[in-house]
Amino acid sequence: MRIDIITILPDLMKSPFSDSILKRAQSKGLVDIHFHNLRDYSTNKQKSIDDYQFGGGAGMVMMIEPIDLCISKLKSERDYQEIIYMTPDGETLNQGIANTLSLKENIIILCGHYKGVDQRVRDLFITKEISIGDFVLSGGELAANVLCDAVIRLIPGVLNDETSALTDSFQDNLLAPPVYTRPSDYKGNKVPDILLSGNFPKIEEWREEQAYQRTKERRPDLLD
Amino acid sequence: MRIDIITILPDLMKSPFSDSILKRAQSKGLVDIHFHNLRDYSTNKQKSIDDYQFGGGAGMVMMIEPIDLCISKLKSERDYQEIIYMTPDGETLNQGIANTLSLKENIIILCGHYKGVDQRVRDLFITKEISIGDFVLSGGELAANVLCDAVIRLIPGVLNDETSALTDSFQDNLLAPPVYTRPSDYKGNKVPDILLSGNFPKIEEWREEQAYQRTKERRPDLLD
Repeated sequence: MRIDIITILPDLMKSPFSDSILKRAQSKGLVDIHFHNLRDYSTNKQKSIDDYQFGGGAGMVMMIEPIDLCISKLKSERDYQEIIYMTPDGETLNQGIANTLSLKENIIILCGHYKGVDQRVRDLFITKEISIGDFVLSGGELAANVLCDAVIRLIPGVLNDETSALTDSFQDNLLAPPVYTRPSDYKGNKVPDILLSGNFPKIEEWREEQAYQRTKERRPDLLD
Repeated sequence: MRIDIITILPDLMKSPFSDSILKRAQSKGLVDIHFHNLRDYSTNKQKSIDDYQFGGGAGMVMMIEPIDLCISKLKSERDYQEIIYMTPDGETLNQGIANTLSLKENIIILCGHYKGVDQRVRDLFITKEISIGDFVLSGGELAANVLCDAVIRLIPGVLNDETSALTDSFQDNLLAPPVYTRPSDYKGNKVPDILLSGNFPKIEEWREEQAYQRTKERRPDLLD
């Protein structure tokens, strides 16, 4: 999988790709990340990529031309299945979207900043708009980091233990059950007896019950 | 505001704090970020902080003792209003939670990794569990980055133009209206006439209508 990320702040985005699972996914050749600094596509001397918004109001708007130049160049080089814009008013990211995107070959992710991009960028170039939640961030960069992480970890071979992803929260619409590790008694706080019993069918039953109870209590909406 | 972040991957988290708005917030002295590498609190020679889960199953669990040592040390130094655990089964982050947290003086954020932390950590130390959405990440680090960004940008003085945050999506339960900047005609794609009219009351009316329409179309749940 190849991901092209268009941003005005590539340095801000780099550390999450330089460590742990995402680093390993790249060194294994399972994913190829390319950053494109939008300022390199600016057509004026000041290298500016934003301007005041028409109609007045606080906050700058990212101009269409540099984005057009960058996306058009990429599209001339290969086919992209999705050109994604990270925006708070996009479709809310969930595990299903992450699963679907993990099957794509080439995607572009455009990070908004300031008040966002000129609406014509969205109308003309974007195939999918994604939000990571009902909150506002300084820019789309962190949202893109989150999207990449959620997607890349699902690519076969990225996680060491593939069954691990399958038992995560949300893969079956249930939250994960509580987990415990050693010591079995920590300052008087004990692990539930059942987990020490060695009776694996009973343990499985207990976990399913706990997952269901936790979901019912915390996220009844997932059970609908 | 002071934020103490407990993680096994401090390097993974650093670039978002080293650029743009979060960097400026720190250099202005408006927020103070401290990373604590959980491995420094490991009590064994291998510096391990995780172990197999009781009852079997894929995925490692973060042990209680190093986390206890780290949190207890911090609590002995100052009072914390919240000790937050980032977890997919926590309360879903929204703008209201970000607003509330932006008023706190000292908070701790614990990043889960692998299958998460021993349940006793959550029972004994955590005051608030937050999820950034219904998807699974490699760890709580990116979720903590997102939470910090959403919160820190709301601290007065962090954004250059404070009115800018007030017109963002979600602050009034409406998505933001479309925005446009120069040129007014880009390869035949024109900005709506109203925005070029100079009639500001009419422009305001148009924006409210667009915000409402966009919310109704994309996120009717926000209007309830």
